[in-house]
Amino acid sequence: MVFDSDDAEAAGTAKVQIAMRYDDKNKQFAILVIQLSNVPALLLQQDQKVTIRVAVLPCWESTSCLFRTRPAEPADSLVYNEVFWVSISYPALRQKTLRVDVCTVDKSHLEECLGGAQISLAEICRSGEKTTRWYNLLSYKYQQKENRK
Amino acid sequence: MVFDSDDAEAAGTAKVQIAMRYDDKNKQFAILVIQLSNVPALLLQQDQKVTIRVAVLPCWESTSCLFRTRPAEPADSLVYNEVFWVSISYPALRQKTLRVDVCTVDKSHLEECLGGAQISLAEICRSGEKTTRWYNLLSYKYQQKENRK
Repeated sequence: MVFDSDDAEAAGTAKVQIAMRYDDKNKQFAILVIQLSNVPALLLQQDQKVTIRVAVLPCWESTSCLFRTRPAEPADSLVYNEVFWVSISYPALRQKTLRVDVCTVDKSHLEECLGGAQISLAEICRSGEKTTRWYNLLSYKYQQKENRK
Repeated sequence: MVFDSDDAEAAGTAKVQIAMRYDDKNKQFAILVIQLSNVPALLLQQDQKVTIRVAVLPCWESTSCLFRTRPAEPADSLVYNEVFWVSISYPALRQKTLRVDVCTVDKSHLEECLGGAQISLAEICRSGEKTTRWYNLLSYKYQQKENRK
């Protein structure tokens, strides 16, 4: 297989920047949702606010593993800088996957998720060091199209 | 929120070990599917072979971004050691997400995927250095249950 090196979509993926840190002393996992870039690649309608939903999965405790940023007015880039704390042991954390979804919220508070990333925590660092990274977001519209093939 | 530190499921997640390497000189991306651990956590029927499907997404070139390992007889751990090569420029690769699915194949060649992981390639290394990691697999049965809530 050969991808075209000048792929039209090469610059076109929406990305989310996330920092994570595990505090072994207090058994606390911090998820810092920093920012979104290239938001229009997820095909937003211009009048809907954008929220980022993060979930620590699998979650056996009803709905308490799910966090949401405040809804932000749509723009090409969006800065959130919101931190969420999870109390969890290190062995349990290493079994988890962080699911990050970018969703719109309309006036009646209905949420529609446009794309997401999954981050395995199997090799998350125990030392308390913060890792900050950009993650590509896969568009759900694209995935649905693929599934129909 | 507080997770129980002795979570019953702490040791229970299926994992896949993947190595990746980008050869900048030849513009080739190598995906090495090494092995699966804790396969029973994905609730396999004992008589079905297990294959790993990897896809470089988004893929605009019909179906040629999808690779499959040989089907292996079910066991707690499965070693594949199969390598797949993708010809792609570095800027294009950095927009991609590697989707890894664990699927069963029955005698009529019907495929059912049981769980998967998503690996963002936004910060993939250009130097030719190989990165080898374990990734947790999220069970699709679990996710469907969550979506119904």
